[in-house]
Amino acid sequence: MLKLYIGNKNYSSWSMRPWVLLKQSGIPFEEEMVRFDSFEADSQFKRALQALSPTGKVPLLVDGALAVWDTLAIAEYLAEAFPEKQLWPKDTKARAHARSACAEMHSGFSALRSACPMNIEASLPHIGALVLRDQPSVGADLRRLCSLWDEALSNHGGPCLYGDFSIADAYFAPVVMRIKTYALPVPATVQAYLGRVCALPGVKAWIDGALAEQDFLAFEEPYRLSR
Amino acid sequence: MLKLYIGNKNYSSWSMRPWVLLKQSGIPFEEEMVRFDSFEADSQFKRALQALSPTGKVPLLVDGALAVWDTLAIAEYLAEAFPEKQLWPKDTKARAHARSACAEMHSGFSALRSACPMNIEASLPHIGALVLRDQPSVGADLRRLCSLWDEALSNHGGPCLYGDFSIADAYFAPVVMRIKTYALPVPATVQAYLGRVCALPGVKAWIDGALAEQDFLAFEEPYRLSR
Repeated sequence: MLKLYIGNKNYSSWSMRPWVLLKQSGIPFEEEMVRFDSFEADSQFKRALQALSPTGKVPLLVDGALAVWDTLAIAEYLAEAFPEKQLWPKDTKARAHARSACAEMHSGFSALRSACPMNIEASLPHIGALVLRDQPSVGADLRRLCSLWDEALSNHGGPCLYGDFSIADAYFAPVVMRIKTYALPVPATVQAYLGRVCALPGVKAWIDGALAEQDFLAFEEPYRLSR
Repeated sequence: MLKLYIGNKNYSSWSMRPWVLLKQSGIPFEEEMVRFDSFEADSQFKRALQALSPTGKVPLLVDGALAVWDTLAIAEYLAEAFPEKQLWPKDTKARAHARSACAEMHSGFSALRSACPMNIEASLPHIGALVLRDQPSVGADLRRLCSLWDEALSNHGGPCLYGDFSIADAYFAPVVMRIKTYALPVPATVQAYLGRVCALPGVKAWIDGALAEQDFLAFEEPYRLSR
């Protein structure tokens, strides 16, 4: 049985991606949440993860003796292992586009990621407005996201980015969470897509898990003093 | 014919990856170098690239009507388009390891990348020594790289990371260039690997191109006033 190591569901945006991918695709897996106590070398989190993988990070997928230690590599591994699930779009051109989008997400959008960390249970619309007023690079990231999504949705007709659910939707699901938490303004077509993502059973299950955690980690909370 | 848009060979570490991959694998392609004049919106570079791709960045692979705009997506696209070239390792476990390593490179090693930008023609051993003395995070990146390479080399017996040349070697080739320019100290097994990478005809051809450029871009030169 596949085993996926994740961090706190409320905070761990990278963990959310492969979890949603597995869940929404109906691939059986076991999960183990390793709570973020801190990211220092002597933290319980680091000690637990470093015993399993050299980077000591989540997500980590373990399949028997094999540890796959990066989100994008996990996605490619699952796409190969479960071809019948069609995790990437079937069409060559759509697949190349989806992979470019995911790779762009993998290394980019740093202004948005840094200013608006994922925090599913929180509602911080005033922070979102301040961030957009004061940090033009966050606005630029948001515009690029909307244009990328809009292009994919209009080329493929929805409901998901490339037609049916694919790795790309799982990859952007944490960004959807951020846009909602910080109430960032997006065009109507994108707003409708956000609603559809949140309604996917795999995404809904993650959100429910995040809301049930009721944990508060100050180092993940630049904008709140308590829950 | 595939067309690859690249930046200056001396400086553009991201461009080097797919170029070396194509060249070393013997896949025919046309190249177009778009000189880095600046990365401002009104630069000639940005105007040229933005006409071809929404991110306005290199590398960009164009295959007929299809533009693949990210390094990792280009690698996956080529691996699928040319299965006979075996661009990823054949063994499932080695392939998952190689993909994890490339994805880690794609989003990580930021301390090393920022302190030691690629500059193939330059020789900056004193800068390397200063950086290692003053920035512990660069040392940590270097140790992680060496351990990753060492593990792959000893698991697969060389000469390349996963036995024969693969995407992983192309992915780390620009890091090999940095280690040489800044004379960063590495164990003997890794030093021998660096030598083998530089001797690959695809890598050698890129280095020759970089040395022939004789261009000087101040915004890519934190450590030199002139050539």
